[in-house]
Amino acid sequence: MIGRLNHVAIAVPDLEAASAQYRDTLGAVVRPPQDEPDHGVTVVFIELPNTKIELLYPLGENSPIAGFLEKNPAGGIHHICYEVEDILAARDRLKASGARVLGSGEPKIGAHGKPVLFLHPKDFNGCLVELEQV
Amino acid sequence: MIGRLNHVAIAVPDLEAASAQYRDTLGAVVRPPQDEPDHGVTVVFIELPNTKIELLYPLGENSPIAGFLEKNPAGGIHHICYEVEDILAARDRLKASGARVLGSGEPKIGAHGKPVLFLHPKDFNGCLVELEQV
Repeated sequence: MIGRLNHVAIAVPDLEAASAQYRDTLGAVVRPPQDEPDHGVTVVFIELPNTKIELLYPLGENSPIAGFLEKNPAGGIHHICYEVEDILAARDRLKASGARVLGSGEPKIGAHGKPVLFLHPKDFNGCLVELEQV
Repeated sequence: MIGRLNHVAIAVPDLEAASAQYRDTLGAVVRPPQDEPDHGVTVVFIELPNTKIELLYPLGENSPIAGFLEKNPAGGIHHICYEVEDILAARDRLKASGARVLGSGEPKIGAHGKPVLFLHPKDFNGCLVELEQV
């Protein structure tokens, strides 16, 4: 069911410093920051040959990243995203297995403009898992 | 400098349950467990089309995963691994930038039989980063 690893998302306390480190020290391709007000984050995409790293920084009130950075002031891996072909079929299969889908259970449009869902970390080895329909 | 994301490593409290979940619920290709006594882990590789997930479970005394699971009983993402072409050149560039290399600073042979180094999480946004020479 799951396909490619679409991205690994890392919450960072200093977006400029983290971008400079990936660009200058690690020598990666780093895109300019993008504000995503609907998701409460500013995102910097790092393009690796086979997948992406997303650096996440809080934007506005009630950012989903703010609480994470309070608990993890140095930053940390926030979630991983797997691609699926049919997000509703994936959701129904997961729910039938007893896994909990976060929020209303209906897909939202994610930062890439595609339908996404998040799964409960307690059901997936402590990892917040995003599914994105591609 | 960094190339592909080689893998994301997830420490899990129940290797059999986590393997079954990735195979049966998420429909991924899951390989049989491999004991890696030199690294104090039993590993299950999950092969995605573009990268791998490594499920890690403690093996023997002094496993590097045991303390992580004590702090994170549900499991969690333990590290991410980037590929590099020349691990000694990568190490020297990182050290020159002020980043700390864990252990002796000399590459060890990792679970894939290739030279690896680990970088200090405090220098990389709270993420434990492995570099593997490919």
